[in-house]
Amino acid sequence: MTVVITTFDWVPDMARGFVRDLRIRWACEEAGLPYQVETTSVRERTPAHYARQPFGQVPILRDGELSLFESGAMLLYLGEGQDSLLPRDPQARAQTQQWLIAALNSLEPVVMALALARVFDRNAVAEELALPRVHERLRQLEPVLADRDFIAAGQFTIADILMTDVLRNVDSLGELAAHPVLAEYLARMIARPAFQRAHAAQLEHFAEAA
Amino acid sequence: MTVVITTFDWVPDMARGFVRDLRIRWACEEAGLPYQVETTSVRERTPAHYARQPFGQVPILRDGELSLFESGAMLLYLGEGQDSLLPRDPQARAQTQQWLIAALNSLEPVVMALALARVFDRNAVAEELALPRVHERLRQLEPVLADRDFIAAGQFTIADILMTDVLRNVDSLGELAAHPVLAEYLARMIARPAFQRAHAAQLEHFAEAA
Repeated sequence: MTVVITTFDWVPDMARGFVRDLRIRWACEEAGLPYQVETTSVRERTPAHYARQPFGQVPILRDGELSLFESGAMLLYLGEGQDSLLPRDPQARAQTQQWLIAALNSLEPVVMALALARVFDRNAVAEELALPRVHERLRQLEPVLADRDFIAAGQFTIADILMTDVLRNVDSLGELAAHPVLAEYLARMIARPAFQRAHAAQLEHFAEAA
Repeated sequence: MTVVITTFDWVPDMARGFVRDLRIRWACEEAGLPYQVETTSVRERTPAHYARQPFGQVPILRDGELSLFESGAMLLYLGEGQDSLLPRDPQARAQTQQWLIAALNSLEPVVMALALARVFDRNAVAEELALPRVHERLRQLEPVLADRDFIAAGQFTIADILMTDVLRNVDSLGELAAHPVLAEYLARMIARPAFQRAHAAQLEHFAEAA
């Protein structure tokens, strides 16, 4: 059975390459899982959309009867039984889940707070509160990545997909240069052929939609 | 083997009952898993603490050789093989993981943004930006919980632990009354004997530390 990824039919130029369906495309490319892409309207969020994703966001994953939202949950689901994404060994598995959750709950919220303040709200007060919190977290992450190639389990995992995508957002905000260890990690990860294929596929999708 | 939960040796009164070791205590109580509690200094965060938790936070879980941080990851780890926490059925399991991640990535960040603005930063501009985002998410969550007793899988799961703990924070900020469906869900969850035991144990821990 081929999984189906639902994403938006259109997004503005600045969001292209950063829509979270990228995370799912990347996992499929790493594991050699075929996938199809369907779209839902970004301008008119339908009741059918909210029925599958209560917050009106994307991506949504379908696998037969199962419909899932939350990119982190999709990665856990796709990782089951795929040692190339989520190792079966209990300790390696737990550490992969730990870093996947750390990316989603300890890093992404502080990064998104800065993006909201600077890009969406354009509010200098909120930006001034958010910026030091981003750099504190990044400083704390640097020693972790200083002596390892991957964030967890000594191999590429779904935790790298999430960590990379969060750091891509840091980089696009111009805040990664002060953290060379993290910048080097990001460069290694986005050089992976599976990332490159996933990224090109998302850009192509939105280019066709334009 | 008995798992060991590390929490702080002291927290201010307002944080008592809200330290995230509660989530792990609660899971252990629901599943009948014995646990021990150790402490780490909140005032002087040691190198040994940062080595186990790069952000200097708690809780941390130890199970034999394994040391884990991120409460969400600990719940996934404790849930393995415990149908009372994380069902084995693949669809029920995926939906439980989905709502666990939704609590951590779609709800908790907007709630924490409000708590930061109002309680820690005491910044009216940031609060005004954060408040409508909380109520938008809660409005979107209401129809989901209107017709079910538990957030996922038709049974109590680790997703309820996280959703409940996020809603407890909403309630303590005085923002839950506008969402009666969610207030009723919260009341049902915190009435569970396992929650009551976990909550009392945390309060007792900090009372002894005072």
